[in-house]
Amino acid sequence: MSHFELHPDRFFDSDSLIRGYAREIFSSVKSLPIISPHGHVDPKIFVDNKPFENPTQLFITPDHYLFRMLYSQGISMEALGIPSVNGTEVEKDPRKIWKLFAENYFLFQGTPSGIWLDHEFSIIFGIREKLNGSNADKIYDELNEKLISPEFLPRRLFEKFDIEVLSTTDGSTDSLEYHKSINESGWSGRVIPCFRPDAVTDLSNPNWKSNVELLGKVCGYEISSFQIFIQSLEERRSFFKTIGCTSTDHGVFSPFTHELSASEAEKIFQRGLKGKSTLEDENLFTAHMLMEMARMSIEDGLVMQIHPGSYRNHNPVIFANYGADKGADIPMHEEFTFNLKELLNKYGNNPKLTVIVFTLDESTYSRELAPLSGHYPSMKLGPAWWFHDSIEGMTRYRQMVTETAGFYNTVGFNDDTRAFVSIPARHDLARRIDSNFLAGLVARHIISLDEAFSVAKDLTYNLVKKTYKL
Amino acid sequence: MSHFELHPDRFFDSDSLIRGYAREIFSSVKSLPIISPHGHVDPKIFVDNKPFENPTQLFITPDHYLFRMLYSQGISMEALGIPSVNGTEVEKDPRKIWKLFAENYFLFQGTPSGIWLDHEFSIIFGIREKLNGSNADKIYDELNEKLISPEFLPRRLFEKFDIEVLSTTDGSTDSLEYHKSINESGWSGRVIPCFRPDAVTDLSNPNWKSNVELLGKVCGYEISSFQIFIQSLEERRSFFKTIGCTSTDHGVFSPFTHELSASEAEKIFQRGLKGKSTLEDENLFTAHMLMEMARMSIEDGLVMQIHPGSYRNHNPVIFANYGADKGADIPMHEEFTFNLKELLNKYGNNPKLTVIVFTLDESTYSRELAPLSGHYPSMKLGPAWWFHDSIEGMTRYRQMVTETAGFYNTVGFNDDTRAFVSIPARHDLARRIDSNFLAGLVARHIISLDEAFSVAKDLTYNLVKKTYKL
Amino acid sequence: MSHFELHPDRFFDSDSLIRGYAREIFSSVKSLPIISPHGHVDPKIFVDNKPFENPTQLFITPDHYLFRMLYSQGISMEALGIPSVNGTEVEKDPRKIWKLFAENYFLFQGTPSGIWLDHEFSIIFGIREKLNGSNADKIYDELNEKLISPEFLPRRLFEKFDIEVLSTTDGSTDSLEYHKSINESGWSGRVIPCFRPDAVTDLSNPNWKSNVELLGKVCGYEISSFQIFIQSLEERRSFFKTIGCTSTDHGVFSPFTHELSASEAEKIFQRGLKGKSTLEDENLFTAHMLMEMARMSIEDGLVMQIHPGSYRNHNPVIFANYGADKGADIPMHEEFTFNLKELLNKYGNNPKLTVIVFTLDESTYSRELAPLSGHYPSMKLGPAWWFHDSIEGMTRYRQMVTETAGFYNTVGFNDDTRAFVSIPARHDLARRIDSNFLAGLVARHIISLDEAFSVAKDLTYNLVKKTYKL
Repeated sequence: MSHFELHPDRFFDSDSLIRGYAREIFSSVKSLPIISPHGHVDPKIFVDNKPFENPTQLFITPDHYLFRMLYSQGISMEALGIPSVNGTEVEKDPRKIWKLFAENYFLFQGTPSGIWLDHEFSIIFGIREKLNGSNADKIYDELNEKLISPEFLPRRLFEKFDIEVLSTTDGSTDSLEYHKSINESGWSGRVIPCFRPDAVTDLSNPNWKSNVELLGKVCGYEISSFQIFIQSLEERRSFFKTIGCTSTDHGVFSPFTHELSASEAEKIFQRGLKGKSTLEDENLFTAHMLMEMARMSIEDGLVMQIHPGSYRNHNPVIFANYGADKGADIPMHEEFTFNLKELLNKYGNNPKLTVIVFTLDESTYSRELAPLSGHYPSMKLGPAWWFHDSIEGMTRYRQMVTETAGFYNTVGFNDDTRAFVSIPARHDLARRIDSNFLAGLVARHIISLDEAFSVAKDLTYNLVKKTYKL
Repeated sequence: MSHFELHPDRFFDSDSLIRGYAREIFSSVKSLPIISPHGHVDPKIFVDNKPFENPTQLFITPDHYLFRMLYSQGISMEALGIPSVNGTEVEKDPRKIWKLFAENYFLFQGTPSGIWLDHEFSIIFGIREKLNGSNADKIYDELNEKLISPEFLPRRLFEKFDIEVLSTTDGSTDSLEYHKSINESGWSGRVIPCFRPDAVTDLSNPNWKSNVELLGKVCGYEISSFQIFIQSLEERRSFFKTIGCTSTDHGVFSPFTHELSASEAEKIFQRGLKGKSTLEDENLFTAHMLMEMARMSIEDGLVMQIHPGSYRNHNPVIFANYGADKGADIPMHEEFTFNLKELLNKYGNNPKLTVIVFTLDESTYSRELAPLSGHYPSMKLGPAWWFHDSIEGMTRYRQMVTETAGFYNTVGFNDDTRAFVSIPARHDLARRIDSNFLAGLVARHIISLDEAFSVAKDLTYNLVKKTYKL
Repeated sequence: MSHFELHPDRFFDSDSLIRGYAREIFSSVKSLPIISPHGHVDPKIFVDNKPFENPTQLFITPDHYLFRMLYSQGISMEALGIPSVNGTEVEKDPRKIWKLFAENYFLFQGTPSGIWLDHEFSIIFGIREKLNGSNADKIYDELNEKLISPEFLPRRLFEKFDIEVLSTTDGSTDSLEYHKSINESGWSGRVIPCFRPDAVTDLSNPNWKSNVELLGKVCGYEISSFQIFIQSLEERRSFFKTIGCTSTDHGVFSPFTHELSASEAEKIFQRGLKGKSTLEDENLFTAHMLMEMARMSIEDGLVMQIHPGSYRNHNPVIFANYGADKGADIPMHEEFTFNLKELLNKYGNNPKLTVIVFTLDESTYSRELAPLSGHYPSMKLGPAWWFHDSIEGMTRYRQMVTETAGFYNTVGFNDDTRAFVSIPARHDLARRIDSNFLAGLVARHIISLDEAFSVAKDLTYNLVKKTYKL
């Protein structure tokens, strides 16, 4: 049983000059409120405000980062209690799952998941030992006890985390009832939706037609033409705005953008309704919808986000048995210079548009994304995303982006998490890495310490607030 | 108003061991003469030898690195006084433009542009404050006063910068009158041309036909066949050599090389003259012209440079209103293993050829370019280029190239600048980064300090002189 | 003549905190036995156990890393004594070749070849000076004298190197007579084969048909159908296993995997026998053979390795005159997310399969390979390969892989060498770089020192033994 206290200088370079500056810079930003402009927390937890069920349900079951790694080492999804689609029996005992997780906790050494969990256990829950097979039961009990105390209810944690605003991610047909409830509850927490219409803009989705029908139902009319489809999306964006929404999000396979004529769009839309889409239709439809979304953003002011390049559900065995978001999404090589050209050429010089672009292909940082966002006024570069939201990943991001795009064409941090209690851990890590990066610039006399303080505050707080209009 | 003195150890690692070695190594090379084998300075300034007009004209107007960044942050080209193609009114007051620039100077924190400018202001012009909105006017006046003094005339600066030789970049039809004037003037400055025939080798250029006609006019005969076209280029190369030229340059979209038969080449050439080129014609013509240029280089000894992979004029709004070279050139993914194969297979084993290859796609450094230049005797790898001519960019270059290609298949530094007064700043930065890289090797006992001194001198002076035949 | 003693802290970061930890961690693994699960040493040397001929034959002639670099600097293959295919006269005097090599030894500054050679000269042969043109003869004599002493016979070196097991790489038709001899000799050295059937699975090989015929001869029947072809390979794998083989290896142009129907496979096979293969046949055949090899691995337990992405014999002049493996193999851009999908979808969830994937395209580490191996239980990620088996290359590998795949989806070190005496040098370097990487994590409080000791032992010894079933 090893003693377990997070070091105050953790993740800073060990060079004493850099470490000293990093400490100072981090001190100046560590207590700023958290702005979380993009993520996947379920808003219902703040409506119910009930205790989290148990440590396994809280930490493991919703976190595909964790069972992805465990699965890669030969541990079955059944043994981890991941609910099966077809009703196959899976492990039901949360304590047994916890034990299995604890025994394999060493797999997360050197990974961001390990870092976030250590932070959550130690700082949020006050656990004083590093989790392992021997102390698994004891820590399970400690966590369980805390979870039922009022201090660990969702709203209380939201306040303790000092979250100024939290954005969820919501389908175009979502009623936003939980957001409304929160708004009307009198509770001061600001939880806002983000408009993500992928289910109806992705023609390759096998449920596309029924998704469009549902959209029609929500709007109160039949969506029989592309024109009506566009109208329905404009209405839904408008509705989202009334609930506090300031942004949209587009999780596309490719960032290809291309404008169709009205009649081409209509033809493709009609083929889609008849279930006769071709692969080309699918590509063109998404490409055109990105153009439409940019146009709408200019009109209604919603900030547009593009998250491309993940091959979702790469493993059909896992998808068939456990569904989506189970750790089997794999990045692909990506291209932006050609793909974004049409969108940027038509809308990228318009000061009314903000389009934030993300990537999973780090080779595009210095080659395409920094040059593009360092030229087009509408384009900003989103932070290191998903697999790259890590010490080395965020460091590479700053190293490959800053010299071409500067700091001010980036937009601060996104935690992008499904795991609510990981939010402070993720922001702590991001603030430390940015502080350490700035410290390295100060130590090498590239910027002054005063400049570093100012940039650090912008990266932590001002840029995200301004860019996302929060 | 912050005090502003460039630190003598700037850009070196803060680790004391590395910093100590870096200081020693840099000391040994910092005073070597500057050899600038590739760049875009206007030779006319050395003929006229008149004072630079004002700080805005000197620093901002010609530097697309600067207004690219300002434009990306929503500052209009008009406000920056960038002359418009169609005669739209633009800001005419240089002091007002300077003020706007100064107010936004913080955008260049952590960028090479910021580093170069700080060097120019502090070391060349003796400005004692960091530029900002409040001191903009005062610094403008200081700079203005200096610009009219004899110490800041172009020829005097050339001498103070200790430039041993400066290469410009010149079209195939250029009369080279300024170079001739300089040669004949009795002034000792060595300013030589570089033969860059893109205007006539790029069939996709809308002015290609008139460019070829102009080439004919310059040569004194009609260029009615591909064979005569080739002859005219050979003649022009020969003429360039008489004025001191030692190299050619080829700014191609793709580094694809392919040899056509005489009849294929002729057919494509004739279709070009009739304005009936296809996209395939365009690709094949450039591919074949690279082969022809390599052949000519073997015959006349001119060193061949290839600068591929920039999507020029990506933003048509900017191109239509302000023309080329306005910060809207965006890199693309690049491929060399297949594309250069034909050229290297035919000519790459020939000791008479030197072909220097550059890239904007850093993923090709370790994957393709270091292995290719670490095998073919004719191929050398150009330094980190354009967006990558920066602290992190040059460091990554050495880290990704050295272990496979060694130091001796690289060719020293190119400043590649349009901004004459940035030359010493750029060479200072490059020498510091190379010194620091070598210091890191010494500190880790990979090479000895004596070896580092020797390599540093080669990287700074000997390699560029030898490779470019200067 | 410079004094020449390898520094005990070589290759460690100069930061004193990191260096201190690196020293401790390295101390804990430096004396572990060497496991070499993949390489190209000729097993015959352990059968004959004769003295190596001379320093030139031992160090230069078999090492394409060395003459690649020398050739790139204009030194001819003839002068290096590389035997020509067509009988052209080449330099025969080993001492003269040695001298030429020594004069150009500075070219290897900062390269892994230089590091390995320094280690071999200094630690294995006790040379006390750094090789150069002036001491070339003296060192040649010293080396020559040692080579004939019993201490430097192959078996004795194998024992002194503390090699626990050494795998060679062997064609499917190989008789494995040397492996058998070693097994039967009573000598305790464990030298095992690896099954590499490229000669018969690569339809683009001009000798494919005769290779298949030879396979038939070895099996004792005519291989007239694809089904018989498959049977023959299963038999050969079985035979290899009886000699100690635990793995297969596949050096494919592309990692594309795709299963053909029995009749499609048969048709392609028959067209191959008739010499009428198309390019598409070639791609599909290899893609299908990878599927077959994975299936066989599940059945017979052999660990499968895939080494894709080298454009072999890129320089036809060198290939025509000197044959394969002469330093003219150039990496290409690579793709795994799409290419491996079929294999991983069908077999990647099967705990009986282990498939180890390598890459020469570092941009795939964080983008594709770490996510894939961090999900599929069958897939593991091979170590930094070939050009990337270097200080910076191995460091980048850990930096780009660990955060997504962890340590336990990697497989330890492969030396992959043709140069027997370089084995301890290569393992020494790999152990130092891993130790230094772990030290960096400890210094930044990412893992504890105890964890680092444990991971270091796993990376050095346990993982390779377990993954390769040794």
